[in-house]
Amino acid sequence: MKKQSTPPVILITNDDSIFAPGIHALVNAVRPLGKIIVVAPDKAQSGMGHAITIGQPIRLQKYDGFGPDVEAYQCSGTPVDCVKIAVANILPAKPTICVSGINHGANHSINVIYSGTMSAAVEAAVEDIPSIGFSLLDYSWDADFSHVEKYIREIVSAVLKSKKLKNYCLNVNIPAKTKQAIKGIKVCRQANAKYQERFDERKDPHGKKYYWLTGEFVNFDKGKDTDVAALKNNYISVVPVQFDLTNYPHTNHTKKLLENIHEEG
Amino acid sequence: MKKQSTPPVILITNDDSIFAPGIHALVNAVRPLGKIIVVAPDKAQSGMGHAITIGQPIRLQKYDGFGPDVEAYQCSGTPVDCVKIAVANILPAKPTICVSGINHGANHSINVIYSGTMSAAVEAAVEDIPSIGFSLLDYSWDADFSHVEKYIREIVSAVLKSKKLKNYCLNVNIPAKTKQAIKGIKVCRQANAKYQERFDERKDPHGKKYYWLTGEFVNFDKGKDTDVAALKNNYISVVPVQFDLTNYPHTNHTKKLLENIHEEG
Repeated sequence: MKKQSTPPVILITNDDSIFAPGIHALVNAVRPLGKIIVVAPDKAQSGMGHAITIGQPIRLQKYDGFGPDVEAYQCSGTPVDCVKIAVANILPAKPTICVSGINHGANHSINVIYSGTMSAAVEAAVEDIPSIGFSLLDYSWDADFSHVEKYIREIVSAVLKSKKLKNYCLNVNIPAKTKQAIKGIKVCRQANAKYQERFDERKDPHGKKYYWLTGEFVNFDKGKDTDVAALKNNYISVVPVQFDLTNYPHTNHTKKLLENIHEEG
Repeated sequence: MKKQSTPPVILITNDDSIFAPGIHALVNAVRPLGKIIVVAPDKAQSGMGHAITIGQPIRLQKYDGFGPDVEAYQCSGTPVDCVKIAVANILPAKPTICVSGINHGANHSINVIYSGTMSAAVEAAVEDIPSIGFSLLDYSWDADFSHVEKYIREIVSAVLKSKKLKNYCLNVNIPAKTKQAIKGIKVCRQANAKYQERFDERKDPHGKKYYWLTGEFVNFDKGKDTDVAALKNNYISVVPVQFDLTNYPHTNHTKKLLENIHEEG
């Protein structure tokens, strides 16, 4: 790896687009910590997961909405594309850290696999760039981010100061602003939860059916050590995230299952 | 869970679209094993990862290309949308199994996080439907699938007969057809590999820049127990896949890192 420059170079992206208040709050939160470069989608890309753009080219355009001290680009691709093109074509060397968000809405538990914000952070970790995805439990465009900046600055600062772990990635979810102060930070595991989907069937003006994805969040996990539990108790949840999807506990069962399939079976 | 019907109900999807030869080969491979229902994208959705369609509705249309014994729908959504709408709106009960593919191209190692084919399988596992994603190491539309059907039928049959593990998902990659016969099946772990990206910069006829994502595959993993190693030696690789992304080994480090951030820090 190339030697990091001083001060730290902080790559910022998200999935709600470069125009979202959340990414502007994130830039403000970490601005004192280093040189900021933003590469973020030019339109909402929520729920894009780890999608990349293969079948068509992508576009980049300079964006000056963060002021003269922040180099910023809006990108026509997905959040993961933004990280890829930032690392491959825009930055002269790998950034010191990548921070993604602040997402307008929760990315705890199963949401981590759907979230473009978290997938961008995971993509940075694949590149061995320490990364943190930040999400606020408030889906509103006008969400109040005033209580989060201090925490974000301290978390990013702590990661910048610490020993660098390989492929390090954190999923940070922050309770929405209420009258009650946030109680603190809990390092957690991903809760075992999912969405119970329902597709809302409608008819267009021409009589043809179409479907809207809707669903109820269902938490199967009674554990007190989960992100969902921490957030419910007004803590910030922090889950370290990996991208080795191997299900090691299922390995032996699978070996037995397949041992009778032979070459000429 | 609702009781499963007999014979098994096999939900089939992919990411190369319902028109891809790979999904037709997959239907042929498993047709003797149960009742087939296909819900697959109406256009190529490679690299869509775990994307879902949130901002717009999706469409479904009956498709008769698999013959009269196969109920099939083409869907305007992502591979994950296909699984969601199949389970929520099309099937009267959860299918016995979900198989995805056969992908035109490898989904070993890091590809699992980008692949729509594998994300569809993972989505089924989230629904606790046993699932298997199949991929052939041949990107060609005219890929030769003649050597894979026997293996696929036997793997699916073995999973159907076995004890049901919770959230069970397999990532199966199959060597491309060559003169050498496949040596057998190896249950593996996901290799630690990534793409070294390069964005190819071009100018459109109006002088504006655009970028094509390209990249070289880089395998950092010398392990003999990886999917990449198995495939290199002409074995079918099988990796059990999970969706708990918690990086447990990074938990203690993260706790220490953040322990000095307090409420009024």
